[in-house]
Amino acid sequence: MSTQSFEFRLSATDGNARRGTISMPRGEIRTPAFMPVGTGGTVKAMYMDQVRDLGADIILGNTYHLMLRPGAERVARLGGLHHFARWDRPILTDSGGFQVMSLSALRKITEQGVTFQSHIDGSRHEMSPERSIEIQGLLGSDIQMQLDECVRLPASEDEIARAMEMSLRWAERCKTQFGDQPGKAMFGIVQGGDVPRLREQSAKGLADLDLKGYAVGGLAVGEPQQVMLDMLEVTCPLLPAEKPRYLMGVGTPDDILKSVARGIDMFDCVMPTRAGRHGLAFTRHGKINLKNARHAEDHRPLDEESSCPAARDYSRAYLHHLVRSNEILGMMLITWNNLSYYQDLMAGIRGAIEAGDFQAFSAATQAAWEAGDIPPL
Amino acid sequence: MSTQSFEFRLSATDGNARRGTISMPRGEIRTPAFMPVGTGGTVKAMYMDQVRDLGADIILGNTYHLMLRPGAERVARLGGLHHFARWDRPILTDSGGFQVMSLSALRKITEQGVTFQSHIDGSRHEMSPERSIEIQGLLGSDIQMQLDECVRLPASEDEIARAMEMSLRWAERCKTQFGDQPGKAMFGIVQGGDVPRLREQSAKGLADLDLKGYAVGGLAVGEPQQVMLDMLEVTCPLLPAEKPRYLMGVGTPDDILKSVARGIDMFDCVMPTRAGRHGLAFTRHGKINLKNARHAEDHRPLDEESSCPAARDYSRAYLHHLVRSNEILGMMLITWNNLSYYQDLMAGIRGAIEAGDFQAFSAATQAAWEAGDIPPL
Ligand SMILES: [Zn+2]
Ligand SMILES: [Zn+2]
Repeated sequence: MSTQSFEFRLSATDGNARRGTISMPRGEIRTPAFMPVGTGGTVKAMYMDQVRDLGADIILGNTYHLMLRPGAERVARLGGLHHFARWDRPILTDSGGFQVMSLSALRKITEQGVTFQSHIDGSRHEMSPERSIEIQGLLGSDIQMQLDECVRLPASEDEIARAMEMSLRWAERCKTQFGDQPGKAMFGIVQGGDVPRLREQSAKGLADLDLKGYAVGGLAVGEPQQVMLDMLEVTCPLLPAEKPRYLMGVGTPDDILKSVARGIDMFDCVMPTRAGRHGLAFTRHGKINLKNARHAEDHRPLDEESSCPAARDYSRAYLHHLVRSNEILGMMLITWNNLSYYQDLMAGIRGAIEAGDFQAFSAATQAAWEAGDIPPL
Repeated sequence: MSTQSFEFRLSATDGNARRGTISMPRGEIRTPAFMPVGTGGTVKAMYMDQVRDLGADIILGNTYHLMLRPGAERVARLGGLHHFARWDRPILTDSGGFQVMSLSALRKITEQGVTFQSHIDGSRHEMSPERSIEIQGLLGSDIQMQLDECVRLPASEDEIARAMEMSLRWAERCKTQFGDQPGKAMFGIVQGGDVPRLREQSAKGLADLDLKGYAVGGLAVGEPQQVMLDMLEVTCPLLPAEKPRYLMGVGTPDDILKSVARGIDMFDCVMPTRAGRHGLAFTRHGKINLKNARHAEDHRPLDEESSCPAARDYSRAYLHHLVRSNEILGMMLITWNNLSYYQDLMAGIRGAIEAGDFQAFSAATQAAWEAGDIPPL
């Protein structure tokens, strides 16, 4: 059931794993949740109806991409991102900061904000904490993210501290700019790199701001998985238990299992969609490279037990052919399979937490991945 | 209703325009029919279910593409093209000859057949009339085409005559190779370039072979539309009235209207699918270039009266954005719209012939195209 205000309710826990529900005017989000990435107003190679039918309660939009093309003011004039892209359920937008750092040219960061040039046409843009929230408002985003500075690892402790402290100050400015919007939320982002002391300081500082939700940022940027998990173990206990926790840009199915076990509620990642455009399928049997010659005459589907037509109704031989021929339908089908697998994994996780056997579910899921694909014909 | 044998029944005529039905084991084909092109086992950027739902009774497969990748023998081992590509209704395959001429390298034509190198990997292949029919049989094609030699225009009369005469001899060899297959058909192809005398000779020669259907080839290869129409006026009256007539590789909606008026029953063309991947939409209002800036903030759909979701439910502004951003969903939606428009056009043509007002339908349709798109906002 949707509500007039933004609410988060925990209905079960199993160890540190949490089963919850975010309720807001545009609908409910069952957590742990995976948010498909709809970069520029489209979840690539998918119809929105398919995304919803797979069980996604929320998608992510990229502020950086949308502000450059088609432009935030234009999206607002066209009725907002929901109407524009035909998705009527909740949308979370990032702040744009991460992609300014990774994609744009000539970026310059000051206390005030960041100036940069578009990677598309070289045009100059300014982004302050206030402007980021303004843009996310123009897009009509339901869950907005503070602007932060994400430092590339490895970095010196001084550099990580400086960026984390500025991100904290930016969180306050974003909170002020966001103001009081009962049906929406603005999340803060924990920074602090791979330094436990700085992660603690960031988490406590944000908790003091009493925000509606908290993200963990600056992870899954190339560091070993164990570093990411260590940082979650430091961070999650310091975040208010009654608020949702979102691990940004993560990750593999294995990352997700291990992060849920440490108290994370929300995820987003381009992995299932990007891999889908490159012939890589996520399945119960692990990751399958459909380019591989072993599939060339294999009439079996990716997973005959899946409820997703892409996984169940098309032969591996056909998918192999489509991938080898660089056919759009290959990208459509494997992306569809991958998002289906991710949503099924999240549904499995939620059910397991409710049943109190998350650990067993997790072990069985990992074992099936490790057993690998069905034997060749 | 499907039948055990291949049958063609005319149910109405209006001037030279014909309304008919081909019945065969895999289903009925309502003519005049447009066959979406499923080049390499996929109608690009479409799910087969969508293609069928738009009203397509038959699709075309390209022998040249499929013999090179995944290979005819491989398709046969995988249960045939219908099973492989998940299309259970009739499939027509071309002979491969046209694309050997236009795509492959180092081709050499003799009376025996043609040798060529694959445009994909340079591998050497041989194609004789017999091998072409054999390949089409391996694919499981329902309507197979004779191998012919299609001469590029302009060409000398001697050259056109030589190729046409050899194509006639190849038609006989293909007929012999095809043998007796009650539920399937092998069509001959009228050649003769832009020379009426040679078209007549070709049509009569093929008619003497008493084939199950006849195609007109070697047109829509760059010549003015009037030349094509003139050749149809020479050719169609010489073809047996009780057999279906297929104009290969044609064409624009306007080509289709004018060719139906001259007695053509079947069409295929990459235009709706290829244009769909380049931001060009076919509509009742004519051809619309969605890249054009006039659509950037136009919230209206391509055609609010269409029954196709792609035409009816998405704003031009969104389609414009997708095209400008080179998003796969843009290709998916505009291809869907285009194939929908083509199938709606064919349904309109069939209804008009039945009602005896094909000429009025044709004039009204042309007038709507000429009136052009709705005014900008
Ligand atoms: Zn099979
Ligand atoms: Zn609108």
